[in-house]
Amino acid sequence: MKTVFSPLHAGHGGQMELVAGAIVPGFEKPSRAEIIRKRVESEKLGPILAPEIHDLTAAKRVHAADYIDFLPTVWPQWEAAGKSGSAIPFAWPTRGLRGDVPPRNIEALLGFYSFDGGASFVKGTWDAIKSSYDVALTAAQLVKAGERAAFALCRPPGHHAGAAFMGGYCFINNAAVAAQWFRDQGATRVAVLDVDYHHGNGTQEIFYDRPDIQVINLHGDPMTEYPFFLGHADERGAGAGEGFNLNYPLPFGTSWAKWNEALEDACQKLAAYAPDVVVVSLGVDTFEKDPISQFKLTSADYPKIGARIARLGLPSLFVMEGGYAVDEIGINAVGVLTGFEGD
Amino acid sequence: MKTVFSPLHAGHGGQMELVAGAIVPGFEKPSRAEIIRKRVESEKLGPILAPEIHDLTAAKRVHAADYIDFLPTVWPQWEAAGKSGSAIPFAWPTRGLRGDVPPRNIEALLGFYSFDGGASFVKGTWDAIKSSYDVALTAAQLVKAGERAAFALCRPPGHHAGAAFMGGYCFINNAAVAAQWFRDQGATRVAVLDVDYHHGNGTQEIFYDRPDIQVINLHGDPMTEYPFFLGHADERGAGAGEGFNLNYPLPFGTSWAKWNEALEDACQKLAAYAPDVVVVSLGVDTFEKDPISQFKLTSADYPKIGARIARLGLPSLFVMEGGYAVDEIGINAVGVLTGFEGD
Ligand SMILES: [Zn+2]
Ligand SMILES: [Zn+2]
Repeated sequence: MKTVFSPLHAGHGGQMELVAGAIVPGFEKPSRAEIIRKRVESEKLGPILAPEIHDLTAAKRVHAADYIDFLPTVWPQWEAAGKSGSAIPFAWPTRGLRGDVPPRNIEALLGFYSFDGGASFVKGTWDAIKSSYDVALTAAQLVKAGERAAFALCRPPGHHAGAAFMGGYCFINNAAVAAQWFRDQGATRVAVLDVDYHHGNGTQEIFYDRPDIQVINLHGDPMTEYPFFLGHADERGAGAGEGFNLNYPLPFGTSWAKWNEALEDACQKLAAYAPDVVVVSLGVDTFEKDPISQFKLTSADYPKIGARIARLGLPSLFVMEGGYAVDEIGINAVGVLTGFEGD
Repeated sequence: MKTVFSPLHAGHGGQMELVAGAIVPGFEKPSRAEIIRKRVESEKLGPILAPEIHDLTAAKRVHAADYIDFLPTVWPQWEAAGKSGSAIPFAWPTRGLRGDVPPRNIEALLGFYSFDGGASFVKGTWDAIKSSYDVALTAAQLVKAGERAAFALCRPPGHHAGAAFMGGYCFINNAAVAAQWFRDQGATRVAVLDVDYHHGNGTQEIFYDRPDIQVINLHGDPMTEYPFFLGHADERGAGAGEGFNLNYPLPFGTSWAKWNEALEDACQKLAAYAPDVVVVSLGVDTFEKDPISQFKLTSADYPKIGARIARLGLPSLFVMEGGYAVDEIGINAVGVLTGFEGD
């Protein structure tokens, strides 16, 4: 399996993030991607390619144009306002407030276009976002060109980014961009299977009224687990998209047996949908030692995930999302891919 | 004029707040109220009374019951989760996310019931909130009983608190509680005149569809000024409340002449509404030296505000809101009140 990777991700480093009650160094850090890249090499998964550069047309197919246009301006605006450190908002347009009038103030705009204090900017953040987007599209092109599968080693991740909001370390929704790109290239139906510990709230929000892109999420129950405000089992899509959004919220402490039951059910529904291609939002923060998550998967479980996805018999694009136990993130992420390939 | 004041406000002290990119000691601190209290004494404004204790019935007339029930549980839940410091959220249900399902997680609930990271809790916060509410109701009772005016020296302030959200140092909307209480005591119409630098987004949100409570705000333009996501001139009320919400967004750097023009227009519209009583959300962060605001009023201007309100000839309840230049906050706040009394 070919991997697409860009070193530009590293410019998004040293950023701080808001957690409840404190601002701390980001859990989402450059070493995550480097450890996975090294494991791709040591496991001889296949060649590592640089991304081709794309314009932002494909991003604007799933995100609001004003949101995408905003992202490259964040750091310059933040610096122009005399600020340094990490660009983090402090007020958000929640229910009862207006989400339809973008203010003219960088602090306000950061809140206007986000749902948390986890998608912070430093100087190199936009170049990293753009490179991650290019990585996803380049890997999608490999699958479109006939590869059985490809691995988009994206960083920053994307699945928490919605049509017009960032959050949860995510800015452009790489998996959603790729799914829509496949549609625009002629695929009739596309499935997105999100196995990250956290609900892919952005992906759900983007495709919620669409029957042509099935979105399936296995994740920590949002009643207690981040991102909290989406991902309940009763969210099944809206309008023409009714029935094409599937959530499997799972309780604190879920281990392989129960997680795998959900995966099996998800894969059966995915197969019944009969998509032309599957985009896997690949997070490995389901791992038992992950510092910010609460499932109990072991390193031996990840190849089984890949093997089950392989049995779908579909062209498959793996897009890297979360996973924060840096020592094992390479073993687990690449474990899914080698499991897919049957090694 | 009688003042109502409770020393319990001081328990809400030492709290941190989120500003863009950092967590810093709260600008909204106990010395604010103490300086005003001392000025009330030194200016011999009138007696200072302790509040009567009230149950939370009046709070639930303007706030969602689940929100009010949540507030006393915040600090105990935060401690039970093993946390210390200040309880500050990190994720919010912005547009596209669900605001209808309260999670079961204190970090998530803090976000669910707020719009920013400025309404933080420490151990004494709930008692301070409750005392501020008691102060407002007790002062309202004085006006109901026949006083021409009364001063509710509330802390924490209230005007950013909506039906089910806190934010901007505000938890229970003291002015809204008092306005509704006057209605429930037989007033046919009540006006709320908010002269704080910041838009009273909570008060507007609470009464937006109501014709029986007129809400008038003079404030920094939300395109650039906090709280950003409400307070535009085109927000005139909804449904039966259409026309009963008036916003005067004013630009950065507004000085007395322009501010006073807006006040004059506001007072004329208020007089035309002919309410039985006026509740003044009294913020003095319009002051030229306020550390977080951008208007240019001087200490000589505040008595003129009070005098203009007095000319309405209405029973008047002054409810303390913002103002952060601690040295002058007493002079300016009490200046409004002595101006009202004609001293
Ligand atoms: Zn995750
Ligand atoms: Zn204010």
